[in-house]
Amino acid sequence: METHNKIPVGVLGATGAVGQRFVQLLARHPWFEVTALAASDRSAGKPYAEVCKWVIPGDPPPAVGEMIVQPLEPNLPVKLVFSALPADVAREIEPLFAQTGYAVCTNASAYRAVDDVPLLIPEVNADHVALIARQRATRNWPGLIVASPNCTITGVALPLKPLDMAFGVRKVFMTSMQAISGAGYPGVASLDILDNVIPYIPGEEEKFAQELRKMLGRVVDGRGVDADIVLSAHANRVPVFDGHTVSLSVGFEHPTLVEDVIAALRDFRGAEVARGLPSAPERPLIVRTEPDRPQPRRDRDAEGGMAISVGRVRPCPLLDIRMTTVSHNTLRGAASGAILNAELLVATGYVER
Amino acid sequence: METHNKIPVGVLGATGAVGQRFVQLLARHPWFEVTALAASDRSAGKPYAEVCKWVIPGDPPPAVGEMIVQPLEPNLPVKLVFSALPADVAREIEPLFAQTGYAVCTNASAYRAVDDVPLLIPEVNADHVALIARQRATRNWPGLIVASPNCTITGVALPLKPLDMAFGVRKVFMTSMQAISGAGYPGVASLDILDNVIPYIPGEEEKFAQELRKMLGRVVDGRGVDADIVLSAHANRVPVFDGHTVSLSVGFEHPTLVEDVIAALRDFRGAEVARGLPSAPERPLIVRTEPDRPQPRRDRDAEGGMAISVGRVRPCPLLDIRMTTVSHNTLRGAASGAILNAELLVATGYVER
Amino acid sequence: METHNKIPVGVLGATGAVGQRFVQLLARHPWFEVTALAASDRSAGKPYAEVCKWVIPGDPPPAVGEMIVQPLEPNLPVKLVFSALPADVAREIEPLFAQTGYAVCTNASAYRAVDDVPLLIPEVNADHVALIARQRATRNWPGLIVASPNCTITGVALPLKPLDMAFGVRKVFMTSMQAISGAGYPGVASLDILDNVIPYIPGEEEKFAQELRKMLGRVVDGRGVDADIVLSAHANRVPVFDGHTVSLSVGFEHPTLVEDVIAALRDFRGAEVARGLPSAPERPLIVRTEPDRPQPRRDRDAEGGMAISVGRVRPCPLLDIRMTTVSHNTLRGAASGAILNAELLVATGYVER
Amino acid sequence: METHNKIPVGVLGATGAVGQRFVQLLARHPWFEVTALAASDRSAGKPYAEVCKWVIPGDPPPAVGEMIVQPLEPNLPVKLVFSALPADVAREIEPLFAQTGYAVCTNASAYRAVDDVPLLIPEVNADHVALIARQRATRNWPGLIVASPNCTITGVALPLKPLDMAFGVRKVFMTSMQAISGAGYPGVASLDILDNVIPYIPGEEEKFAQELRKMLGRVVDGRGVDADIVLSAHANRVPVFDGHTVSLSVGFEHPTLVEDVIAALRDFRGAEVARGLPSAPERPLIVRTEPDRPQPRRDRDAEGGMAISVGRVRPCPLLDIRMTTVSHNTLRGAASGAILNAELLVATGYVER
Repeated sequence: METHNKIPVGVLGATGAVGQRFVQLLARHPWFEVTALAASDRSAGKPYAEVCKWVIPGDPPPAVGEMIVQPLEPNLPVKLVFSALPADVAREIEPLFAQTGYAVCTNASAYRAVDDVPLLIPEVNADHVALIARQRATRNWPGLIVASPNCTITGVALPLKPLDMAFGVRKVFMTSMQAISGAGYPGVASLDILDNVIPYIPGEEEKFAQELRKMLGRVVDGRGVDADIVLSAHANRVPVFDGHTVSLSVGFEHPTLVEDVIAALRDFRGAEVARGLPSAPERPLIVRTEPDRPQPRRDRDAEGGMAISVGRVRPCPLLDIRMTTVSHNTLRGAASGAILNAELLVATGYVER
Repeated sequence: METHNKIPVGVLGATGAVGQRFVQLLARHPWFEVTALAASDRSAGKPYAEVCKWVIPGDPPPAVGEMIVQPLEPNLPVKLVFSALPADVAREIEPLFAQTGYAVCTNASAYRAVDDVPLLIPEVNADHVALIARQRATRNWPGLIVASPNCTITGVALPLKPLDMAFGVRKVFMTSMQAISGAGYPGVASLDILDNVIPYIPGEEEKFAQELRKMLGRVVDGRGVDADIVLSAHANRVPVFDGHTVSLSVGFEHPTLVEDVIAALRDFRGAEVARGLPSAPERPLIVRTEPDRPQPRRDRDAEGGMAISVGRVRPCPLLDIRMTTVSHNTLRGAASGAILNAELLVATGYVER
Repeated sequence: METHNKIPVGVLGATGAVGQRFVQLLARHPWFEVTALAASDRSAGKPYAEVCKWVIPGDPPPAVGEMIVQPLEPNLPVKLVFSALPADVAREIEPLFAQTGYAVCTNASAYRAVDDVPLLIPEVNADHVALIARQRATRNWPGLIVASPNCTITGVALPLKPLDMAFGVRKVFMTSMQAISGAGYPGVASLDILDNVIPYIPGEEEKFAQELRKMLGRVVDGRGVDADIVLSAHANRVPVFDGHTVSLSVGFEHPTLVEDVIAALRDFRGAEVARGLPSAPERPLIVRTEPDRPQPRRDRDAEGGMAISVGRVRPCPLLDIRMTTVSHNTLRGAASGAILNAELLVATGYVER
Repeated sequence: METHNKIPVGVLGATGAVGQRFVQLLARHPWFEVTALAASDRSAGKPYAEVCKWVIPGDPPPAVGEMIVQPLEPNLPVKLVFSALPADVAREIEPLFAQTGYAVCTNASAYRAVDDVPLLIPEVNADHVALIARQRATRNWPGLIVASPNCTITGVALPLKPLDMAFGVRKVFMTSMQAISGAGYPGVASLDILDNVIPYIPGEEEKFAQELRKMLGRVVDGRGVDADIVLSAHANRVPVFDGHTVSLSVGFEHPTLVEDVIAALRDFRGAEVARGLPSAPERPLIVRTEPDRPQPRRDRDAEGGMAISVGRVRPCPLLDIRMTTVSHNTLRGAASGAILNAELLVATGYVER
């Protein structure tokens, strides 16, 4: 694809922390080019650089600083939009775009649990794009919505996929230690998290179970069938900037050896259609063998923040195996993940080049 | 007990971080008075203030600064010693003191797993002092050794005790998020833990299971019988100064309602003989009802660092209940715990007033 | 003063972080007893425990939890109020209380720079209460306002006072490294300060110079005359919970030896009228001689958070001496400081027992 | 320069934190290729991957993992070595290499203060390579030693250079807030720095003055003449991972307007011979205009960690201007800085291509 022939895209909610990540990552994307930024009425009509307090590392890409922020209305001169809207705004706005013909790749939680909205991690369940047909038929939408999962469960679903294929995942016990960037900006007050752990993140534990069952489920006759998995979760916030760490115990339908589990993780390359997409990592899973890895600061940036690092794979006295995973919550778990979804839509023809 | 009539005590390993806590806490103890400090040959013969780099909050008690540090030999002018020795040194030194007639209250791990050494949390298993009879008989010791448990499992055994009594604890899933002070000084390098989680603490997970079974077990005919509990643990280090947080799921022999679990925790006062001891908290367990508590920074100092805070008690999809606990690892989980053990030895007559 | 005869006091802005500190500290005060809590209309009319999200360590004192929060109107059944109001609200509300007869001890910045409002640190300038006469005369107030200084300059003014008396302070170069609790709650976002320094705190540097000159100045014929000091400041925020650290260089009118500076700091006991007040520390200044002290975490709690720790006193190649100071910004620098001011008002007869 | 024609180089002290940075950065260098790794006898003779505990982000470059570590003896098959040795080892070993014909680019402090050893920041004082002639003549060395300055003063010398050229720098007040990575690994204990500031770094303040005077001095008749600058420093350690922040006040021989200072900083491109070197940033200085920048986490990586960010340029009540600088201490201030020095040696003919 030639540079002068990039697909123009828009970002909804461009001024927030995730919106900024979209803008930053798309500035150097080989297929997409940001030509429209939209945000709430408070920002609309002004230059992006003026209304956006840049909170992520680095500076805003020079080209976008002068772009005038548009209102959140479905008349942007693009066909594909990335949504970094808050859940309540997304719930109202995203369908307006879909019914006007836009393909919406959303990072918001508003429609994740809806039956006919694919909840996508391309390496895990690229075939769930098949739900789009029913979504369009039922709702009479020329456009579409596909959603990215919760940032924490993303780092769990990826390593569980090959284990589910090989051994059948039935029970999952997980304790998350989540980074502060997962709460957006300003998000977590420093007085709440410095020298502290917060053992609660509203709504999080319920999403883990629901989203994992949906993603590891199948699409049968155009409808989703959830996987039969019981998940027990403890969600914690820790004083880490980026990178969610999960202590994970897994029970299988067909118990197996630790070596086989490690081999399954190591060999995983993900759904064939997802391989080679611009944002897809060469290895979606990286198995660490050091006793004290993975660690968020040392492993979150693996493969540009798109690989999940897995380590400490060992037997579990209660289920079958224990392990620890680390994923980058604002890259794989948010903006980069949604961009990879968009690449899949292009590769599968749902978005035209 | 009159002030002028305090029991003289010694501290073994007085210059390390836990040794300093002993010195600090005993400086204002109503029953005990530090009259001997002992440490490795490197420090022996010099004033305490000169050889001890004080790393805990506050300053060394003025009275002890000028005391001359003694070598680690069993000729200190006391009958009771607190041991803050490293495990390998403790293994060699502590029996020398016991066979010379000293009562040794140790915080070291060296003898925790030994059959005839009581592993004590007075509120949990004060009756385990009964093991001392066999310890003395078998080994021909005029003295004795009693051990304090691992700092993390201390904060788990206390809340599990009333649940075990009421409902029978059978399965435990636990993920710890442990403070840096648990590793002593210098301990964890800041380059390893700032903005990071370390998902591994050598030897820790094995100790949890072993020590919990021993403490929740019974003493039958002078011998210990371990409890029948399967425990699966994930030990993590987090950037928190003091206070270990544990995400905990528990399975019971007799499943019950969340309300009953909360009531059992709330009503727990601990073994009768332990109540009213100088270091015993009025309430060993504090049940928090806020959705986001307990937290290490906000709850570690409850009841002078001697109470375990428990919160988020809720059903578990895999076992019976989930909850979060916070305990102060260098007070209840180390120095204060060992001092409480010594108080129990006085109350039960193993140490003479 | 008998317990049953305590002076009833109120707290304005009782639900914020500083207001909570007032409530916590006054719960065990020997002279004062909180009988009225007032806050914005949003909270007024409801029980304190219900509207106050407790953000400081420990729990709210049980007695105050059930008190009904009052509106910010000058009809509270007390004669003395502590103000923890935001500056803009304080500007409007505090005079209403003063003109109705209340003694207002404020921690807000609104009236600090006003000529006839004493800016008090009792050990430093207790004699500035003489300004109250003119304040009352000019404004026709039966009540009064006295203000506490900025938390950072408090930790500088105290050590500079004895040096000014002995050697004449003329030039001050200061770089502050301020704790996050100085910004209130929620205050500093964790995404802004974890693994970071913020080299800017709005309005802070200007306050340092203005307030130091006022406090080290004299009262002549009932009017304040500022000290002749040039101050250059750099204010920084660092990831420390409590405790402001200041790197300080000082130039004297009469240059002197480091030994004399240390002696002057060590010998300082503060204004005679302030000695023995319930919140006054025995030693307002603690001189540390270790090469690496003072440090905020190790020294902020000295004398209950009321002493300033000073260390690294050494020559300065540009001015006369260099040193480092640490003070507790929410105790000495905020709530405890204002309470000490109120004690001074009692001791000097401006508030009746 | 063709890839197949790279200059073979060695790394002395390859297993430490700075040594690892050299190995990482040189793995993708256009001119240099690591062909020899040397370290203490403890590591020599074993594969690098086996003896090196990798502590910096990312993984060791695959190619070097299997290289056998050599002893610290001057028979490595290269002509250019980078030294990451501790100061005391460097003092002994580096001259052995220089007298055997090696060009030694050292990051150690051992020879920084020696008259005939250039202390180099290419943009600042590339002309100081002229000292090499006397170094070789006096010592009869076929090789040479050039040193990189202290990491903190590097971030000060660069912005002061254009100001010195334009206005004459005479007085400097500086307070540093230095990252933990500046102390190497394991370096600062987490118990010392979490929630804390340490107001002391041994030997640091003296180095600042000495090294700045040397670098801003001139070379006259082959000899160095120090600049006439009085510097007063306060060195502090703060809980930041990478990136040294400095609060800086500067007095000029020819006082000037803030605008002129900003213009001089903005226009600085550094010594002509240094421009275009592979590691040289396009802009050595980046002037930030936001009120709260530069910040270590947000600015340390500017231009690959090679640019110094300068902000808050404003008047100083005591000297002439105040400002804040941020530099990356392990890139510009250590490994990358030494590599840039080596590039300068190639560009000026002291090392042959």
